[in-house]
Amino acid sequence: MEGAPQGTGYVVNLDEKLGRIDEHWKPRVVAQMNDYQFKLVKICGDFVWHSHADTDETFFVIDGEVRIDLRGGPVVIRAGELFVVPKGVEHKPYAEHEASIMLIEPCGVLNTGDARNERTAQNDMWL
Amino acid sequence: MEGAPQGTGYVVNLDEKLGRIDEHWKPRVVAQMNDYQFKLVKICGDFVWHSHADTDETFFVIDGEVRIDLRGGPVVIRAGELFVVPKGVEHKPYAEHEASIMLIEPCGVLNTGDARNERTAQNDMWL
Repeated sequence: MEGAPQGTGYVVNLDEKLGRIDEHWKPRVVAQMNDYQFKLVKICGDFVWHSHADTDETFFVIDGEVRIDLRGGPVVIRAGELFVVPKGVEHKPYAEHEASIMLIEPCGVLNTGDARNERTAQNDMWL
Repeated sequence: MEGAPQGTGYVVNLDEKLGRIDEHWKPRVVAQMNDYQFKLVKICGDFVWHSHADTDETFFVIDGEVRIDLRGGPVVIRAGELFVVPKGVEHKPYAEHEASIMLIEPCGVLNTGDARNERTAQNDMWL
C-alpha cells in the first residue's frame, strides 16, 4: 500500500504500472472488483510447487512467455493468452526470460498457496 | 454454448477468440474462474445506460478505445487499460470505432444490467 487508489472507479494502465515494478515474484495489486483483485507480477526463472485449496487462479500473460508446470505436464502461455489453474491443482510457474503477468484471484490468496516459505510474498500490496 | 471447453485447465488466446466474433455487443464467455467469467465482446457505437446493482464490473480494453459515460462524466479506456465500474453505478459504454473488450464479472450478469431491452444479449454464451 503506497497511497495508490484502491477500490474502483479509475483507469489502470498496465504498462505504466509494470514500469514501476523492479522485483520478481512480488505481486502488486492494481485494481479490485468485489472481493477479487488484479495483481501485476514480473517473473523470471523457477518458482515453487503449490496449490490453492479454495480457489481457481487466473494467469493472463502481458509480455513474454510463461510455462506452468502441472503434475500432468506443462502448459505454455504467451502474451495475450490466459489460463485458469483449477482450484486445488498443483502448479509451478516458470519463465526462461522475464515475463509480465496479471493474476486475477480472490483477495487474500498468497502467491505460494499452501506452501509458506521464503518465496511467500506479502499479500495485498497495492501499486 | 457451442461445445467449447468450459471451466478451467486450457489456454485461451484472446486474438484467436476475437477473430471468431462477428457481431457487436454480444459478450461471449471464454473462460471461468470460480463463479466469475471472462467474456470477449466487440463494440461499436453507443450502448444503453444501465447499472449492476449487485456487482462491480471490469472492462479490459484489448483493441481500440472505449469511452464509458458515467453520470459524473466520461472515462476513456485504451488498449492495455482496465477500469472497474463500481457496483450500482450507472454507465454507458461507447466506441467511435470498433473496439474489443474483455469483461470480467460474476456469472449471470446481463450486459444491460437492470435495463432489459432489445440490447440485452443472451447470457452464458461460450465461444
